[in-house]
Amino acid sequence: MDKTNAPAFRVDRAAAGSMARTGSLTTPHGVIRTPAFVPVATRATVKSVEPAPLAAIGVQVLICNTYHLHLVPGEDVVHELGGLAVFSGWDGPTMTDSGGFQVFSLGAGKVHGVGKVASVFPDEVGGSGGTPRGGSPSLVRLTEEGVRFRSILDGSWHTFSPEGVVELQRKLGADIALVLDECTSPLHDREYTRAAMERTHRWAERAACAFRPRQGEGQLQYGIVQGGAFHDLREESARVIASMGFDGVAIGGSLGRSKEDMRHVLDWVVPLLPADLPRHLLGIGEIEDIFATVSRGVDTLDCAAATRMARNGSVLLKGAPRHRLHLRNAAYRSDPRPIDPTCDCPACRNHSRAYLRHLLRAGELSFARLATLHNLRAMTRLMASIREALDADALDDLAASWGVAID
Amino acid sequence: MDKTNAPAFRVDRAAAGSMARTGSLTTPHGVIRTPAFVPVATRATVKSVEPAPLAAIGVQVLICNTYHLHLVPGEDVVHELGGLAVFSGWDGPTMTDSGGFQVFSLGAGKVHGVGKVASVFPDEVGGSGGTPRGGSPSLVRLTEEGVRFRSILDGSWHTFSPEGVVELQRKLGADIALVLDECTSPLHDREYTRAAMERTHRWAERAACAFRPRQGEGQLQYGIVQGGAFHDLREESARVIASMGFDGVAIGGSLGRSKEDMRHVLDWVVPLLPADLPRHLLGIGEIEDIFATVSRGVDTLDCAAATRMARNGSVLLKGAPRHRLHLRNAAYRSDPRPIDPTCDCPACRNHSRAYLRHLLRAGELSFARLATLHNLRAMTRLMASIREALDADALDDLAASWGVAID
Repeated sequence: MDKTNAPAFRVDRAAAGSMARTGSLTTPHGVIRTPAFVPVATRATVKSVEPAPLAAIGVQVLICNTYHLHLVPGEDVVHELGGLAVFSGWDGPTMTDSGGFQVFSLGAGKVHGVGKVASVFPDEVGGSGGTPRGGSPSLVRLTEEGVRFRSILDGSWHTFSPEGVVELQRKLGADIALVLDECTSPLHDREYTRAAMERTHRWAERAACAFRPRQGEGQLQYGIVQGGAFHDLREESARVIASMGFDGVAIGGSLGRSKEDMRHVLDWVVPLLPADLPRHLLGIGEIEDIFATVSRGVDTLDCAAATRMARNGSVLLKGAPRHRLHLRNAAYRSDPRPIDPTCDCPACRNHSRAYLRHLLRAGELSFARLATLHNLRAMTRLMASIREALDADALDDLAASWGVAID
Repeated sequence: MDKTNAPAFRVDRAAAGSMARTGSLTTPHGVIRTPAFVPVATRATVKSVEPAPLAAIGVQVLICNTYHLHLVPGEDVVHELGGLAVFSGWDGPTMTDSGGFQVFSLGAGKVHGVGKVASVFPDEVGGSGGTPRGGSPSLVRLTEEGVRFRSILDGSWHTFSPEGVVELQRKLGADIALVLDECTSPLHDREYTRAAMERTHRWAERAACAFRPRQGEGQLQYGIVQGGAFHDLREESARVIASMGFDGVAIGGSLGRSKEDMRHVLDWVVPLLPADLPRHLLGIGEIEDIFATVSRGVDTLDCAAATRMARNGSVLLKGAPRHRLHLRNAAYRSDPRPIDPTCDCPACRNHSRAYLRHLLRAGELSFARLATLHNLRAMTRLMASIREALDADALDDLAASWGVAID
């Protein structure tokens, strides 16, 4: 790919002694200061929070889901309305996932009954032909051409090809578009994982070709490194994807069976990626993962945990066990304190733990919004403090204050 | 009741040729300009909207539910946290319903399968002993002493007496407390309705006595006129309640079988109420009711319709059929316009009908909030325009612009 415009990403400061860095990622809808957390807005809204208040709590960029927006409302509606930024009223940067994660979550992940890091195991399975054990039938058919999905809404079949996804994402108008890939399961064996990785590389090449005529129009295209938790495959994938001239690189797929496996994957992959490209880690971002990933050179990462936890009543508070309060706990019955006295989010500015617990127990929708705003604010504050610490060469101290040792 | 402080209510301007007026109702948490619409915040939150943004869209006062707050979180928690205003973070005026409506909705209304205006009829029933036809078993036991409710949460029994409710509401700390009454069903006969009304009067007297030691502490107490859709009963009830020295009078109970019956009830009751007392109409307030009730001298009225409709996708727009848009309609699929270009609510300022329809269809919680804010803003704008029209002696013209003839 020939670059016809200035690089979108600039490393502002590289840490001494680790892969960590701060950076600036310029997109048509604004500059993202990295490292940055990317909240999940699957259907062009963070669940329970409309876009308007997100900028005020420090959110810089959202990741929407190509598959879900293709089903509802359809990419043509989004395009007709002016693209995601105009459509949603979130006029900051957006990313769109490729649908590749759905290959996993509606396919092997469903059959295997696992997530991207499989810590609880159904019986071992081999390749894609593994029979369902503790899982459910696949809603996905994979071929060299692309992938056929069954709609979770009405059972209708939809086909995604690498080229089709490029066009679909053009219509959605995200600032950063991820290529179509196959996200494998932690339970896939080496043979299957290699075959899937090689197909992912062929798809990446096709996506890059399809994107080429539109280079310079503003949208950035990221390739995706696969290879499961296999050392040689991850290195191969990093080299291949790095050679294709993408605007950025995402690290996707199975990250093994533990947080330790995840760290190994990053240790293998990141050093092989061009230092001047932004690196996105897909689907990871619990508090305890942040320091381990940032110190390994991750610039942006998305994760639904903070927002999903919020809806279930778990709110983030530095220093609490696992940095979480469970607001259903009777201890907060008449607790007049805010979740976090140092927080400036709408929940903490206006409400006590007692009131929030009441809303949660009463099943009030207003709880989900307030808790989500709080957890997102906690994440954006954490990321801002990480950027500051990196500028001051003090990431270790910050990590220690969170009870994390950077190893 | 001896008045020991300045009257809370002042008539600012009485209309010529109708019972309508503008007024100012002073409460410990602020002055309410009347006529005013009172959004329903059953559990100390408007469903899907936390309290903070309500003042900005013109909401002046909320009505919370004594029965529901008694169950969750309990009046002691609210009291310990400083009363409803501090507890909820809504620092404007609040009203608390008495639990009387639950006598109806969990009792006869449930057995009879009807609402306060019964336009669709199960078979006729007589007194309270009518067998369930199209309804379900009562969760309520009525005695002279008070009422026993079965919790909708865990089936436990709770007793409300007139005196107990006064104490419970003291703990909740609302600005306006409604006495315990029995709200009868449109299907109750004259005999039952009279007996219930007389009991309601005895309960009102007991509530007034229990409240007397606290007069001057700031909370206002309203009596409630009952009597169903029976002319003589309504007049009798208006005279009895008016004589008891309450700070205000609410009109409750069955309002008959049609909007016309409701207007008759107001025509009978309002002229018998002291002009210097505020008048609240309980549980009524769809757009089409507003002009008919305000022109009959209603100062405040509460209704869950605007907020419930919002959650179902019906949003208010002057001039649309029944002044509503149904956002599920495919006509709005790619409609770039706001719901109402003249509206300044967060939904209309930031979002198109197409995006709102997308959120609704996708089942996103953020839809409920945006639509609720819009409908409440539509109601507060309507009420502000009514206050202006009354000041200019132009209520008829305003009503005509909404397609309503004041009769």
